[in-house]
Amino acid sequence: MTALFERLLIAGVGLVGGSLAHAVREAGLAGEVVGFGRSEPNLAVARERGLVDRTSRDPAEAAAGVDAVVIATPVGTAVGVAEALRPHVRPGTILTDVGSVKTALVAALEACWAPVGPVVGGHPIAGSETSGAAAARVDLFRGRRCILTPTPATDRAALGRVRALWEGVGARVEEMTPAVHDELLARVSHLPHLVAYALVDAVAGARVDGHDLLAYAGSGFRDTTRIAGSPAGLWRDVALANAPAVRAALGEFRAALERLESLLAAGDGDGLEAVLAAARAARRRLGRGE
Amino acid sequence: MTALFERLLIAGVGLVGGSLAHAVREAGLAGEVVGFGRSEPNLAVARERGLVDRTSRDPAEAAAGVDAVVIATPVGTAVGVAEALRPHVRPGTILTDVGSVKTALVAALEACWAPVGPVVGGHPIAGSETSGAAAARVDLFRGRRCILTPTPATDRAALGRVRALWEGVGARVEEMTPAVHDELLARVSHLPHLVAYALVDAVAGARVDGHDLLAYAGSGFRDTTRIAGSPAGLWRDVALANAPAVRAALGEFRAALERLESLLAAGDGDGLEAVLAAARAARRRLGRGE
Repeated sequence: MTALFERLLIAGVGLVGGSLAHAVREAGLAGEVVGFGRSEPNLAVARERGLVDRTSRDPAEAAAGVDAVVIATPVGTAVGVAEALRPHVRPGTILTDVGSVKTALVAALEACWAPVGPVVGGHPIAGSETSGAAAARVDLFRGRRCILTPTPATDRAALGRVRALWEGVGARVEEMTPAVHDELLARVSHLPHLVAYALVDAVAGARVDGHDLLAYAGSGFRDTTRIAGSPAGLWRDVALANAPAVRAALGEFRAALERLESLLAAGDGDGLEAVLAAARAARRRLGRGE
Repeated sequence: MTALFERLLIAGVGLVGGSLAHAVREAGLAGEVVGFGRSEPNLAVARERGLVDRTSRDPAEAAAGVDAVVIATPVGTAVGVAEALRPHVRPGTILTDVGSVKTALVAALEACWAPVGPVVGGHPIAGSETSGAAAARVDLFRGRRCILTPTPATDRAALGRVRALWEGVGARVEEMTPAVHDELLARVSHLPHLVAYALVDAVAGARVDGHDLLAYAGSGFRDTTRIAGSPAGLWRDVALANAPAVRAALGEFRAALERLESLLAAGDGDGLEAVLAAARAARRRLGRGE
Protein backbone atom coordinates (compact mmCIF):
# COMPACT_ATOMS: atom_id res chain seq x y z
CA MET A 1 0.00 0.00 0.00
CA THR A 2 1.20 3.48 -0.88
CA ALA A 3 1.13 5.88 2.05
CA LEU A 4 -1.35 8.74 1.83
CA PHE A 5 1.38 11.25 2.67
CA GLU A 6 5.12 11.06 2.26
CA ARG A 7 5.86 13.05 5.36
CA LEU A 8 3.15 14.34 7.69
CA LEU A 9 3.84 17.12 10.17
CA ILE A 10 1.71 17.24 13.28
CA ALA A 11 2.02 20.56 15.07
CA GLY A 12 0.99 20.13 18.69
CA VAL A 13 1.56 16.61 19.99
CA GLY A 14 -1.05 16.67 22.76
CA LEU A 15 -4.04 14.43 23.32
CA VAL A 16 -5.50 14.94 19.85
CA GLY A 17 -2.30 15.49 17.86
CA GLY A 18 -0.48 12.70 19.65
CA SER A 19 -3.35 10.25 19.19
CA LEU A 20 -3.60 11.12 15.50
CA ALA A 21 0.16 10.73 15.04
CA HIS A 22 0.11 7.33 16.71
CA ALA A 23 -2.90 6.11 14.73
CA VAL A 24 -1.37 7.35 11.46
CA ARG A 25 1.83 5.48 12.19
CA GLU A 26 0.01 2.34 13.17
CA ALA A 27 -2.12 2.43 10.01
CA GLY A 28 0.87 3.25 7.80
CA LEU A 29 -0.85 6.31 6.38
CA ALA A 30 2.36 8.35 6.13
CA GLY A 31 5.92 7.53 5.23
CA GLU A 32 7.08 9.56 8.20
CA VAL A 33 5.29 11.38 11.02
CA VAL A 34 7.06 14.41 12.46
CA GLY A 35 5.95 16.05 15.69
CA PHE A 36 6.39 19.79 16.16
CA GLY A 37 5.90 21.53 19.49
CA ARG A 38 7.30 23.97 22.02
CA SER A 39 7.67 21.74 25.08
CA GLU A 40 10.69 19.46 24.92
CA PRO A 41 9.44 17.32 27.85
CA ASN A 42 6.17 16.71 26.01
CA LEU A 43 7.98 15.95 22.75
CA ALA A 44 10.18 13.53 24.66
CA VAL A 45 7.09 11.70 25.90
CA ALA A 46 5.81 11.56 22.31
CA ARG A 47 9.08 10.00 21.14
CA GLU A 48 9.32 7.59 24.04
CA ARG A 49 5.76 6.41 23.46
CA GLY A 50 6.44 5.99 19.74
CA LEU A 51 3.67 8.39 18.77
CA VAL A 52 5.91 9.99 16.12
CA ASP A 53 9.00 9.07 14.12
CA ARG A 54 10.85 12.17 15.24
CA THR A 55 10.24 15.61 16.71
CA SER A 56 11.52 19.13 16.34
CA ARG A 57 11.03 22.47 18.04
CA ASP A 58 12.41 24.31 15.02
CA PRO A 59 9.86 25.31 12.35
CA ALA A 60 12.30 25.05 9.45
CA GLU A 61 13.54 21.61 10.47
CA ALA A 62 10.04 20.38 11.26
CA ALA A 63 8.51 21.57 7.99
CA ALA A 64 11.27 20.38 5.65
CA GLY A 65 9.94 18.03 2.98
CA VAL A 66 6.45 17.55 4.39
CA ASP A 67 3.44 17.29 2.08
CA ALA A 68 0.79 17.93 4.73
CA VAL A 69 0.56 19.77 8.04
CA VAL A 70 -2.00 19.08 10.77
CA ILE A 71 -2.35 21.94 13.24
CA ALA A 72 -3.34 20.30 16.52
CA THR A 73 -2.52 23.13 18.91
CA PRO A 74 -5.19 24.97 20.91
CA VAL A 75 -7.50 27.14 18.80
CA GLY A 76 -5.95 30.37 20.05
CA THR A 77 -2.47 29.52 18.78
CA ALA A 78 -3.32 27.71 15.51
CA VAL A 79 -2.82 30.66 13.15
CA GLY A 80 0.45 31.66 14.79
CA VAL A 81 1.79 28.15 14.32
CA ALA A 82 0.71 28.09 10.67
CA GLU A 83 2.48 31.43 10.14
CA ALA A 84 5.65 30.08 11.73
CA LEU A 85 5.68 27.02 9.47
CA ARG A 86 4.62 28.72 6.21
CA PRO A 87 8.05 30.03 5.11
CA HIS A 88 9.50 26.53 5.36
CA VAL A 89 7.06 24.28 3.48
CA ARG A 90 7.15 23.47 -0.21
CA PRO A 91 4.40 24.77 -2.53
CA GLY A 92 1.20 22.71 -2.54
CA THR A 93 1.55 21.49 1.04
CA ILE A 94 -1.89 20.75 2.50
CA LEU A 95 -2.85 22.44 5.77
CA THR A 96 -5.55 20.99 7.98
CA ASP A 97 -6.48 21.39 11.62
CA VAL A 98 -8.48 19.87 14.48
CA GLY A 99 -9.94 23.01 16.08
CA SER A 100 -13.27 22.96 17.95
CA VAL A 101 -14.37 26.17 16.21
CA LYS A 102 -14.26 26.57 12.47
CA THR A 103 -15.72 29.74 10.92
CA ALA A 104 -13.17 32.27 12.15
CA LEU A 105 -10.32 29.78 12.29
CA VAL A 106 -10.72 28.34 8.78
CA ALA A 107 -11.00 31.84 7.33
CA ALA A 108 -7.81 32.88 9.12
CA LEU A 109 -5.96 29.73 8.08
CA GLU A 110 -7.07 30.17 4.46
CA ALA A 111 -5.82 33.75 4.49
CA CYS A 112 -2.54 32.69 6.06
CA TRP A 113 -1.93 29.68 3.83
CA ALA A 114 -3.15 31.11 0.49
CA PRO A 115 0.39 31.69 -0.85
CA VAL A 116 1.32 28.07 -0.13
CA GLY A 117 -1.40 25.50 -0.77
CA PRO A 118 -4.86 24.18 0.07
CA VAL A 119 -6.56 24.38 3.48
CA VAL A 120 -9.10 21.86 4.83
CA GLY A 121 -10.82 22.59 8.15
CA GLY A 122 -11.41 19.58 10.38
CA HIS A 123 -12.68 18.69 13.83
CA PRO A 124 -12.60 15.20 15.28
CA ILE A 125 -15.24 14.93 18.02
CA ALA A 126 -13.13 13.10 20.53
CA GLY A 127 -11.23 14.21 23.54
CA SER A 128 -11.39 14.46 27.27
CA GLU A 129 -10.33 16.79 30.03
CA THR A 130 -6.86 15.20 29.94
CA SER A 131 -4.09 16.67 27.83
CA GLY A 132 -0.55 16.15 26.65
CA ALA A 133 1.26 13.38 24.76
CA ALA A 134 1.01 11.17 27.83
CA ALA A 135 -2.79 11.11 27.43
CA ALA A 136 -2.71 10.15 23.72
CA ARG A 137 -4.48 6.94 22.71
CA VAL A 138 -4.06 5.16 19.39
CA ASP A 139 -7.81 4.39 19.28
CA LEU A 140 -9.06 7.87 20.25
CA PHE A 141 -10.82 8.41 16.90
CA ARG A 142 -12.08 4.91 16.25
CA GLY A 143 -15.82 5.05 15.63
CA ARG A 144 -15.94 8.78 16.45
CA ARG A 145 -17.19 11.49 14.17
CA CYS A 146 -14.79 13.79 12.38
CA ILE A 147 -16.36 16.84 10.79
CA LEU A 148 -14.67 18.42 7.79
CA THR A 149 -15.73 21.95 6.90
CA PRO A 150 -15.01 22.77 3.25
CA THR A 151 -15.58 26.30 1.99
CA PRO A 152 -16.00 27.53 -1.61
CA ALA A 153 -12.22 27.90 -1.63
CA THR A 154 -11.48 24.31 -0.64
CA ASP A 155 -9.52 22.18 -3.09
CA ARG A 156 -11.48 18.96 -3.70
CA ALA A 157 -8.41 16.73 -4.06
CA ALA A 158 -7.02 18.02 -0.75
CA LEU A 159 -10.40 17.47 0.88
CA GLY A 160 -10.36 13.87 -0.36
CA ARG A 161 -6.91 13.23 1.08
CA VAL A 162 -7.81 14.69 4.47
CA ARG A 163 -10.99 12.60 4.47
CA ALA A 164 -8.89 9.50 3.73
CA LEU A 165 -6.58 10.41 6.62
CA TRP A 166 -9.43 10.46 9.15
CA GLU A 167 -11.16 7.44 7.71
CA GLY A 168 -7.80 5.67 7.88
CA VAL A 169 -7.68 6.16 11.66
CA GLY A 170 -11.22 4.85 12.08
CA ALA A 171 -13.27 8.04 12.21
CA ARG A 172 -16.68 8.52 10.59
CA VAL A 173 -16.18 11.57 8.39
CA GLU A 174 -18.95 14.04 7.69
CA GLU A 175 -18.90 17.37 5.86
CA MET A 176 -20.75 20.56 6.73
CA THR A 177 -20.13 24.29 6.42
CA PRO A 178 -18.00 25.99 9.11
CA ALA A 179 -21.06 27.99 10.21
CA VAL A 180 -23.26 24.93 10.72
CA HIS A 181 -20.42 23.19 12.56
CA ASP A 182 -20.06 26.13 14.91
CA GLU A 183 -23.79 26.40 15.66
CA LEU A 184 -23.91 22.68 16.32
CA LEU A 185 -20.82 22.45 18.51
CA ALA A 186 -21.84 25.56 20.45
CA ARG A 187 -24.74 23.47 21.77
CA VAL A 188 -23.34 19.98 22.26
CA SER A 189 -19.86 20.98 23.42
CA HIS A 190 -19.12 24.63 24.13
CA LEU A 191 -22.31 25.17 26.15
CA PRO A 192 -21.79 22.11 28.41
CA HIS A 193 -18.26 23.27 29.14
CA LEU A 194 -19.38 26.74 30.21
CA VAL A 195 -22.22 25.21 32.24
CA ALA A 196 -19.79 22.91 34.03
CA TYR A 197 -17.40 25.77 34.81
CA ALA A 198 -20.31 27.92 36.06
CA LEU A 199 -21.62 25.11 38.24
CA VAL A 200 -18.27 24.65 39.97
CA ASP A 201 -17.91 28.41 40.27
CA ALA A 202 -21.33 28.77 41.91
CA VAL A 203 -20.95 25.85 44.31
CA ALA A 204 -17.33 26.51 45.24
CA GLY A 205 -18.29 30.09 46.02
CA ALA A 206 -21.37 29.29 48.12
CA ARG A 207 -21.22 29.01 51.90
CA VAL A 208 -23.63 27.04 54.07
CA ASP A 209 -23.06 27.17 57.81
CA GLY A 210 -19.28 27.19 57.36
CA HIS A 211 -19.20 23.91 55.40
CA ASP A 212 -16.89 23.32 52.45
CA LEU A 213 -19.63 22.43 50.00
CA LEU A 214 -17.44 20.55 47.56
CA ALA A 215 -16.62 18.04 50.30
CA TYR A 216 -20.24 16.85 50.02
CA ALA A 217 -20.20 16.38 46.26
CA GLY A 218 -21.38 12.95 45.19
CA SER A 219 -20.94 11.15 41.89
CA GLY A 220 -23.65 13.29 40.27
CA PHE A 221 -21.81 16.54 40.88
CA ARG A 222 -18.52 14.94 39.86
CA ASP A 223 -19.87 13.74 36.51
CA THR A 224 -21.70 16.96 35.78
CA THR A 225 -18.57 19.03 36.34
CA ARG A 226 -15.87 16.69 35.05
CA ILE A 227 -15.18 18.83 31.97
CA ALA A 228 -14.62 21.87 34.18
CA GLY A 229 -11.21 20.24 34.69
CA SER A 230 -10.37 21.15 31.06
CA PRO A 231 -7.68 23.77 30.33
CA ALA A 232 -9.08 27.26 30.93
CA GLY A 233 -7.10 28.99 28.17
CA LEU A 234 -8.31 26.53 25.57
CA TRP A 235 -11.97 27.06 26.44
CA ARG A 236 -11.56 30.81 26.73
CA ASP A 237 -10.31 30.79 23.14
CA VAL A 238 -13.09 28.50 21.91
CA ALA A 239 -15.79 30.58 23.58
CA LEU A 240 -14.40 33.84 22.21
CA ALA A 241 -13.84 32.45 18.71
CA ASN A 242 -17.41 31.16 18.58
CA ALA A 243 -18.99 33.87 20.71
CA PRO A 244 -22.19 34.55 18.69
CA ALA A 245 -23.24 30.88 18.57
CA VAL A 246 -22.16 30.24 22.16
CA ARG A 247 -24.19 33.22 23.36
CA ALA A 248 -27.22 31.94 21.45
CA ALA A 249 -26.76 28.50 23.02
CA LEU A 250 -26.42 30.04 26.49
CA GLY A 251 -29.66 31.91 25.85
CA GLU A 252 -31.47 28.68 24.93
CA PHE A 253 -30.10 27.00 28.03
CA ARG A 254 -31.11 29.91 30.25
CA ALA A 255 -34.64 29.68 28.83
CA ALA A 256 -34.79 25.97 29.70
CA LEU A 257 -33.51 26.69 33.20
CA GLU A 258 -36.00 29.52 33.69
CA ARG A 259 -38.79 27.18 32.64
CA LEU A 260 -37.82 24.82 35.47
CA GLU A 261 -37.57 27.74 37.90
CA SER A 262 -41.02 29.00 36.98
CA LEU A 263 -42.59 25.57 37.42
CA LEU A 264 -40.82 25.23 40.77
CA ALA A 265 -41.91 28.69 41.91
CA ALA A 266 -45.49 27.87 40.94
CA GLY A 267 -45.32 24.50 42.73
CA ASP A 268 -46.44 22.92 39.45
CA GLY A 269 -45.49 19.28 40.07
CA ASP A 270 -47.13 17.91 36.93
CA GLY A 271 -45.50 20.51 34.71
CA LEU A 272 -42.13 19.96 36.35
CA GLU A 273 -42.34 16.20 35.99
CA ALA A 274 -43.33 16.51 32.31
CA VAL A 275 -40.20 18.56 31.51
CA LEU A 276 -37.90 16.31 33.53
CA ALA A 277 -39.42 13.17 31.99
CA ALA A 278 -38.98 14.49 28.45
CA ALA A 279 -35.34 15.39 29.15
CA ARG A 280 -34.78 11.99 30.75
CA ALA A 281 -36.21 10.22 27.70
CA ALA A 282 -33.95 12.23 25.37
CA ARG A 283 -30.93 11.53 27.55
CA ARG A 284 -31.65 7.81 27.71
CA ARG A 285 -31.89 7.60 23.93
CA LEU A 286 -28.33 8.89 23.92
CA GLY A 287 -27.20 5.95 26.06
CA ARG A 288 -24.37 5.83 28.54
CA GLY A 289 -21.70 5.80 25.86
CA GLU A 290 -18.20 6.66 26.83
CA MET B 1 -21.65 -10.20 68.49
CA THR B 2 -25.18 -9.11 69.34
CA ALA B 3 -27.03 -7.71 66.35
CA LEU B 4 -27.92 -4.03 66.46
CA PHE B 5 -31.54 -4.80 65.59
CA GLU B 6 -33.57 -7.96 66.06
CA ARG B 7 -35.59 -7.47 62.93
CA LEU B 8 -35.05 -4.58 60.52
CA LEU B 9 -37.69 -3.57 58.01
CA ILE B 10 -36.53 -1.85 54.86
CA ALA B 11 -39.40 -0.23 53.03
CA GLY B 12 -38.44 0.26 49.40
CA VAL B 13 -35.86 -2.25 48.16
CA GLY B 14 -34.38 -0.17 45.36
CA LEU B 15 -30.80 0.95 44.80
CA VAL B 16 -30.41 2.52 48.24
CA GLY B 17 -32.73 0.28 50.28
CA GLY B 18 -31.50 -2.88 48.57
CA SER B 19 -27.86 -1.93 49.02
CA LEU B 20 -28.44 -1.13 52.70
CA ALA B 21 -30.31 -4.41 53.23
CA HIS B 22 -27.51 -6.38 51.64
CA ALA B 23 -24.78 -4.59 53.59
CA VAL B 24 -26.70 -5.03 56.86
CA ARG B 25 -27.04 -8.75 56.21
CA GLU B 26 -23.40 -9.13 55.27
CA ALA B 27 -22.27 -7.25 58.40
CA GLY B 28 -24.68 -9.16 60.65
CA LEU B 29 -26.20 -5.94 61.95
CA ALA B 30 -29.72 -7.35 62.20
CA GLY B 31 -31.16 -10.71 63.18
CA GLU B 32 -33.43 -10.54 60.18
CA VAL B 33 -33.85 -8.10 57.30
CA VAL B 34 -37.34 -7.82 55.83
CA GLY B 35 -38.01 -6.05 52.54
CA PHE B 36 -41.31 -4.26 51.99
CA GLY B 37 -42.41 -2.93 48.63
CA ARG B 38 -45.17 -2.72 46.06
CA SER B 39 -43.56 -4.37 43.07
CA GLU B 40 -43.42 -8.15 43.32
CA PRO B 41 -40.95 -8.46 40.40
CA ASN B 42 -38.56 -6.09 42.22
CA LEU B 43 -39.02 -7.94 45.53
CA ALA B 44 -38.32 -11.21 43.70
CA VAL B 45 -35.03 -9.76 42.45
CA ALA B 46 -34.20 -8.71 46.03
CA ARG B 47 -34.84 -12.26 47.28
CA GLU B 48 -32.98 -13.93 44.42
CA ARG B 49 -29.95 -11.69 44.98
CA GLY B 50 -30.05 -12.39 48.72
CA LEU B 51 -30.38 -8.71 49.60
CA VAL B 52 -33.02 -9.54 52.24
CA ASP B 53 -34.10 -12.54 54.31
CA ARG B 54 -37.68 -12.29 53.14
CA THR B 55 -40.11 -9.83 51.59
CA SER B 56 -43.74 -8.83 51.91
CA ARG B 57 -46.15 -6.55 50.12
CA ASP B 58 -48.49 -6.54 53.15
CA PRO B 59 -47.83 -3.78 55.75
CA ALA B 60 -49.07 -5.86 58.69
CA GLU B 61 -46.99 -8.88 57.76
CA ALA B 62 -43.93 -6.77 56.95
CA ALA B 63 -44.04 -4.76 60.19
CA ALA B 64 -44.69 -7.63 62.58
CA GLY B 65 -42.02 -7.86 65.26
CA VAL B 66 -39.61 -5.30 63.83
CA ASP B 67 -37.67 -2.94 66.11
CA ALA B 68 -36.64 -0.48 63.39
CA VAL B 69 -37.97 0.69 60.03
CA VAL B 70 -35.89 2.30 57.29
CA ILE B 71 -38.00 4.18 54.75
CA ALA B 72 -36.07 3.95 51.50
CA THR B 73 -38.81 4.87 49.05
CA PRO B 74 -38.75 8.06 46.97
CA VAL B 75 -39.20 11.24 49.01
CA GLY B 76 -42.74 11.83 47.72
CA THR B 77 -44.07 8.52 49.07
CA ALA B 78 -42.14 8.25 52.35
CA VAL B 79 -44.84 9.62 54.66
CA GLY B 80 -47.55 7.50 53.05
CA VAL B 81 -45.45 4.38 53.60
CA ALA B 82 -44.83 5.32 57.25
CA GLU B 83 -48.57 5.80 57.74
CA ALA B 84 -49.30 2.41 56.24
CA LEU B 85 -46.84 0.68 58.54
CA ARG B 86 -47.63 2.60 61.75
CA PRO B 87 -50.69 0.60 62.87
CA HIS B 88 -48.69 -2.62 62.72
CA VAL B 89 -45.46 -1.87 64.60
CA ARG B 90 -44.87 -2.33 68.29
CA PRO B 91 -44.34 0.73 70.57
CA GLY B 92 -40.83 2.11 70.56
CA THR B 93 -40.00 1.05 67.01
CA ILE B 94 -37.38 3.39 65.53
CA LEU B 95 -38.20 5.06 62.22
CA THR B 96 -35.42 6.37 59.99
CA ASP B 97 -35.18 7.26 56.31
CA VAL B 98 -32.75 7.93 53.46
CA GLY B 99 -34.44 10.89 51.78
CA SER B 100 -32.47 13.52 49.86
CA VAL B 101 -34.44 16.32 51.52
CA LYS B 102 -34.85 16.59 55.25
CA THR B 103 -36.61 19.65 56.71
CA ALA B 104 -40.14 19.01 55.47
CA LEU B 105 -39.78 15.24 55.43
CA VAL B 106 -38.38 14.81 58.95
CA ALA B 107 -41.10 17.10 60.35
CA ALA B 108 -43.77 15.07 58.56
CA LEU B 109 -42.30 11.76 59.70
CA GLU B 110 -42.04 13.02 63.30
CA ALA B 111 -45.69 14.07 63.21
CA CYS B 112 -46.72 10.75 61.71
CA TRP B 113 -44.63 8.55 63.98
CA ALA B 114 -45.12 10.46 67.28
CA PRO B 115 -47.63 7.95 68.68
CA VAL B 116 -45.23 5.08 68.04
CA GLY B 117 -41.59 5.81 68.69
CA PRO B 118 -38.48 7.85 67.81
CA VAL B 119 -37.63 9.27 64.39
CA VAL B 120 -34.09 9.84 63.06
CA GLY B 121 -33.67 11.57 59.70
CA GLY B 122 -30.85 10.26 57.54
CA HIS B 123 -29.37 10.70 54.08
CA PRO B 124 -26.55 8.57 52.71
CA ILE B 125 -24.77 10.49 49.94
CA ALA B 126 -24.48 7.64 47.50
CA GLY B 127 -26.46 6.67 44.50
CA SER B 128 -26.53 6.86 40.77
CA GLU B 129 -29.02 7.28 37.97
CA THR B 130 -29.74 3.54 38.14
CA SER B 131 -32.56 2.18 40.25
CA GLY B 132 -34.21 -0.98 41.51
CA ALA B 133 -33.01 -4.01 43.48
CA ALA B 134 -31.05 -5.16 40.43
CA ALA B 135 -28.79 -2.10 40.80
CA ALA B 136 -28.10 -2.62 44.53
CA ARG B 137 -24.45 -3.03 45.57
CA VAL B 138 -23.27 -4.31 48.94
CA ASP B 139 -20.48 -1.70 49.03
CA LEU B 140 -22.58 1.31 47.96
CA PHE B 141 -22.03 3.15 51.25
CA ARG B 142 -18.45 2.15 51.96
CA GLY B 143 -16.40 5.29 52.55
CA ARG B 144 -19.35 7.52 51.64
CA ARG B 145 -20.87 10.17 53.85
CA CYS B 146 -24.15 9.59 55.61
CA ILE B 147 -25.74 12.68 57.10
CA LEU B 148 -28.04 12.29 60.11
CA THR B 149 -30.30 15.25 60.87
CA PRO B 150 -31.41 15.21 64.51
CA THR B 151 -33.97 17.75 65.71
CA PRO B 152 -34.76 18.90 69.27
CA ALA B 153 -37.28 16.04 69.35
CA THR B 154 -34.77 13.33 68.44
CA ASP B 155 -34.20 10.54 70.96
CA ARG B 156 -30.44 10.29 71.62
CA ALA B 157 -30.42 6.52 72.06
CA ALA B 158 -32.24 6.03 68.75
CA LEU B 159 -29.80 8.45 67.08
CA GLY B 160 -26.92 6.37 68.39
CA ARG B 161 -28.37 3.14 67.03
CA VAL B 162 -29.00 4.63 63.58
CA ARG B 163 -25.45 6.00 63.60
CA ALA B 164 -24.16 2.52 64.44
CA LEU B 165 -26.21 1.10 61.56
CA TRP B 166 -24.59 3.38 58.98
CA GLU B 167 -21.12 3.06 60.47
CA GLY B 168 -21.66 -0.68 60.40
CA VAL B 169 -22.07 -0.60 56.60
CA GLY B 170 -18.95 1.50 56.19
CA ALA B 171 -20.36 5.03 55.94
CA ARG B 172 -18.77 8.12 57.48
CA VAL B 173 -21.57 9.54 59.63
CA GLU B 174 -21.98 13.25 60.22
CA GLU B 175 -24.75 15.19 61.98
CA MET B 176 -26.27 18.52 61.03
CA THR B 177 -29.67 20.17 61.24
CA PRO B 178 -32.25 19.36 58.57
CA ALA B 179 -32.10 22.99 57.38
CA VAL B 180 -28.32 22.99 56.91
CA HIS B 181 -28.54 19.63 55.15
CA ASP B 182 -31.11 21.01 52.73
CA GLU B 183 -29.16 24.17 51.94
CA LEU B 184 -26.07 22.08 51.36
CA LEU B 185 -27.65 19.38 49.21
CA ALA B 186 -29.56 21.97 47.19
CA ARG B 187 -26.18 23.09 45.88
CA VAL B 188 -24.13 19.91 45.48
CA SER B 189 -26.96 17.63 44.34
CA HIS B 190 -30.35 19.13 43.55
CA LEU B 191 -28.91 22.00 41.49
CA PRO B 192 -26.70 19.75 39.30
CA HIS B 193 -29.69 17.52 38.58
CA LEU B 194 -31.84 20.43 37.42
CA VAL B 195 -28.92 21.81 35.40
CA ALA B 196 -28.45 18.45 33.68
CA TYR B 197 -32.15 18.16 32.85
CA ALA B 198 -32.20 21.74 31.54
CA LEU B 199 -29.12 21.12 29.40
CA VAL B 200 -30.68 18.08 27.73
CA ASP B 201 -33.95 19.98 27.34
CA ALA B 202 -32.22 22.93 25.66
CA VAL B 203 -30.04 20.87 23.33
CA ALA B 204 -32.69 18.29 22.41
CA GLY B 205 -35.03 21.15 21.56
CA ALA B 206 -32.55 23.13 19.45
CA ARG B 207 -32.36 22.77 15.67
CA VAL B 208 -29.33 23.53 13.53
CA ASP B 209 -29.72 23.07 9.78
CA GLY B 210 -31.94 20.00 10.28
CA HIS B 211 -29.35 18.08 12.30
CA ASP B 212 -30.23 15.92 15.29
CA LEU B 213 -27.94 17.69 17.74
CA LEU B 214 -27.73 14.86 20.24
CA ALA B 215 -26.13 12.67 17.56
CA TYR B 216 -23.07 14.92 17.83
CA ALA B 217 -22.76 14.71 21.60
CA GLY B 218 -19.29 13.68 22.76
CA SER B 219 -18.13 12.37 26.10
CA GLY B 220 -18.32 15.85 27.66
CA PHE B 221 -22.02 16.23 26.97
CA ARG B 222 -22.65 12.65 28.07
CA ASP B 223 -20.93 13.12 31.42
CA THR B 224 -22.47 16.49 32.05
CA THR B 225 -25.97 15.14 31.49
CA ARG B 226 -25.67 11.60 32.86
CA ILE B 227 -27.83 12.37 35.90
CA ALA B 228 -30.61 13.64 33.62
CA GLY B 229 -31.26 9.91 33.20
CA SER B 230 -32.53 9.84 36.81
CA PRO B 231 -36.23 9.20 37.51
CA ALA B 232 -38.26 12.35 36.83
CA GLY B 233 -40.84 11.79 39.57
CA LEU B 234 -38.17 11.42 42.22
CA TRP B 235 -36.46 14.67 41.28
CA ARG B 236 -39.74 16.53 40.90
CA ASP B 237 -40.48 15.56 44.53
CA VAL B 238 -37.02 16.52 45.78
CA ALA B 239 -37.13 19.90 44.02
CA LEU B 240 -40.60 20.69 45.34
CA ALA B 241 -39.84 19.51 48.88
CA ASN B 242 -36.71 21.67 48.99
CA ALA B 243 -37.98 24.48 46.78
CA PRO B 244 -36.69 27.52 48.74
CA ALA B 245 -33.09 26.24 48.94
CA VAL B 246 -33.18 24.92 45.37
CA ARG B 247 -34.39 28.25 44.08
CA ALA B 248 -31.62 30.03 45.98
CA ALA B 249 -29.07 27.63 44.50
CA LEU B 250 -30.49 28.16 41.00
CA GLY B 251 -30.13 31.90 41.56
CA GLU B 252 -26.47 31.52 42.52
CA PHE B 253 -25.85 29.36 39.47
CA ARG B 254 -27.60 31.83 37.18
CA ALA B 255 -25.40 34.59 38.57
CA ALA B 256 -22.28 32.54 37.78
CA LEU B 257 -23.55 31.84 34.28
CA GLU B 258 -24.40 35.50 33.70
CA ARG B 259 -20.90 36.42 34.78
CA LEU B 260 -19.50 34.20 32.01
CA GLU B 261 -21.98 35.64 29.51
CA SER B 262 -21.01 39.20 30.38
CA LEU B 263 -17.31 38.47 29.98
CA LEU B 264 -18.03 36.76 26.67
CA ALA B 265 -20.19 39.64 25.45
CA ALA B 266 -17.44 42.08 26.40
CA GLY B 267 -14.79 39.93 24.69
CA ASP B 268 -12.87 40.01 27.97
CA GLY B 269 -10.48 37.12 27.45
CA ASP B 270 -8.44 37.73 30.60
CA GLY B 271 -11.53 37.95 32.80
CA LEU B 272 -13.03 34.85 31.20
CA GLU B 273 -9.85 32.85 31.64
CA ALA B 274 -9.58 33.90 35.29
CA VAL B 275 -13.07 32.58 36.08
CA LEU B 276 -12.54 29.35 34.13
CA ALA B 277 -9.14 28.79 35.72
CA ALA B 278 -10.51 29.28 39.25
CA ALA B 279 -13.35 26.83 38.55
CA ARG B 280 -10.90 24.37 37.05
CA ALA B 281 -8.66 24.57 40.11
CA ALA B 282 -11.64 23.95 42.42
CA ARG B 283 -12.82 21.03 40.30
CA ARG B 284 -9.37 19.46 40.22
CA ARG B 285 -9.09 19.62 44.01
CA LEU B 286 -12.21 17.47 44.03
CA GLY B 287 -10.45 14.79 41.99
CA ARG B 288 -11.95 12.37 39.53
CA GLY B 289 -13.55 10.26 42.25
CA GLU B 290 -16.25 7.87 41.24
